[in-house]
Amino acid sequence: DISLQNVERLPRLSRVAVCGGTHGNELSGVYLVRELLKVKKKKKKEEEDEDGGAMSVLLVLSNPRAMQQCLRYIDTDLNRCFTHACLIGPTLDKTPYEMRRARELNAMLGPKGSAGAMDLICDLHNTTANMGLSLITYSDHDWICMHIFRHLQARTHGLDRGGGSHLKSAQYDLKWVGPVGPQPHGVVRSNIYTTMKSGVQYMLDWVHFFNSGVIFDGGFMDVFTVVKHIDYPRDGETHNITAAIHPQLQDRDFCLLRPGDPLFQTFSGETLRYTGSEPLYPFFINESAYYEKGIALCLARKRPYKMSQIFKKYA
Amino acid sequence: DISLQNVERLPRLSRVAVCGGTHGNELSGVYLVRELLKVKKKKKKEEEDEDGGAMSVLLVLSNPRAMQQCLRYIDTDLNRCFTHACLIGPTLDKTPYEMRRARELNAMLGPKGSAGAMDLICDLHNTTANMGLSLITYSDHDWICMHIFRHLQARTHGLDRGGGSHLKSAQYDLKWVGPVGPQPHGVVRSNIYTTMKSGVQYMLDWVHFFNSGVIFDGGFMDVFTVVKHIDYPRDGETHNITAAIHPQLQDRDFCLLRPGDPLFQTFSGETLRYTGSEPLYPFFINESAYYEKGIALCLARKRPYKMSQIFKKYA
Repeated sequence: DISLQNVERLPRLSRVAVCGGTHGNELSGVYLVRELLKVKKKKKKEEEDEDGGAMSVLLVLSNPRAMQQCLRYIDTDLNRCFTHACLIGPTLDKTPYEMRRARELNAMLGPKGSAGAMDLICDLHNTTANMGLSLITYSDHDWICMHIFRHLQARTHGLDRGGGSHLKSAQYDLKWVGPVGPQPHGVVRSNIYTTMKSGVQYMLDWVHFFNSGVIFDGGFMDVFTVVKHIDYPRDGETHNITAAIHPQLQDRDFCLLRPGDPLFQTFSGETLRYTGSEPLYPFFINESAYYEKGIALCLARKRPYKMSQIFKKYA
Repeated sequence: DISLQNVERLPRLSRVAVCGGTHGNELSGVYLVRELLKVKKKKKKEEEDEDGGAMSVLLVLSNPRAMQQCLRYIDTDLNRCFTHACLIGPTLDKTPYEMRRARELNAMLGPKGSAGAMDLICDLHNTTANMGLSLITYSDHDWICMHIFRHLQARTHGLDRGGGSHLKSAQYDLKWVGPVGPQPHGVVRSNIYTTMKSGVQYMLDWVHFFNSGVIFDGGFMDVFTVVKHIDYPRDGETHNITAAIHPQLQDRDFCLLRPGDPLFQTFSGETLRYTGSEPLYPFFINESAYYEKGIALCLARKRPYKMSQIFKKYA
């Protein structure tokens, strides 16, 4: 009986942004956005507008100065600058570059929370963790992202291995495709570039279907919700790390970690074990950018997530 | 008949230096040298001196400022600062940090070419290329390094896969153990740390055997000698790369590349092939630090190398 199903009618998605280079040394997104810009330049604009499912796609290179120097950021992590507090402050001479740039991006893609804001933002990342093609969203009532996740899950090999999407508590209304990994920062690996390229195309296809009036059925999907972070063991005086991720845990993102399982191997060769009482799913295992943030890995709970049926609301 | 063999009698190796952090984001060497410093602090000095094979081992963290910021270098690549021209210039306010540091290291480990210089320097590196445990030396008449290579080759799995040592034309009298790969920069992978730790121990064992009067037989060993570098295809205007290493070449370091084999995949999906006329062995395939140097991979010739028998010269 269709009336028993949760049904959501949602407005069409007219404006989509695809962003690369939010972290300047995560190169798949940088080169993908550059390539898409080239392709767009060649295409004729009028072709797109004749189509009922069409949307405008804005292509953005988010942090050009960090890209140019092949660094994650110049002054501060751009990806942590989209809080309301950061966005509304005054711009002074000493304002960090990324905070200025976040305000520019907010003017271009937002303003955040306004009627003129993008309908969907897809921000492309990489990680040195072995997470396959993973997708992150900040709310578990975001039906659009959840349906896009399922659409990609059915079409990409990376997601099968990575274990699917995971959720994070609300931070900003940015939506992400990515990270895709493992890939060292400052490197492009062709297979990862190609996987990301397909992923973005599948996402745009889905938006096109949705805008054209396709009904997407509800159902269940496994999602991972972050519970906590674990830092590396560190020296009390120097704060230097004293152990690395254990070889038996390395590259095992989204594989269940049980109490007593090996977690770290100290530099003198000792094994340190997981002392938590709850079995949890590790991810972002050994991400290079998180050493400075005090994160060796994140731990998540996996749960079946009930999705609503969705289709486009006619205005 | 032993008289037909090439025999070299060489002075004992009294002073050995093990250096980590020459590139501040190549973390295996950084954490290994820190660990060896800790172990040394605990050990009693007198134990070492009673042994006929003993040597002094100087442990050096080469580029502390780059290590602190987890960057390859602060101003310029330290590993290119050990030319005579760099070492003898005047130190001014504007002298790059690494050039000053090279002069400090030269005072500590050299001076280069003097009687007081170290007998052997082992400089530890990492690469994002899949090179296994590889060793680089700058002269093919360096019998000590060649024998150490063979000693390690017999004892480590990494070398079997990587395809052994390779030679480079003379630049400086630094000798290297490493790089060990593949490992993203800014990351420690425990298995690579452990391989490097064993490698350094095998090297020190060998020096101990040599100093104790052990005779090392000659014989043949395959070595790789660099022939040329190949850069990424680039856009004429922006100089941005327009292709990545082809998926069929990625991670195939030290596997023969034949004329017509895939070399790059462009960001639009086209395959570019190797147009050289000579089959050669690729290495340093997709090393992140070499994008800025214009090197996508190096190509080498493999040849059997005739080693002399060596033993210690008695003074």
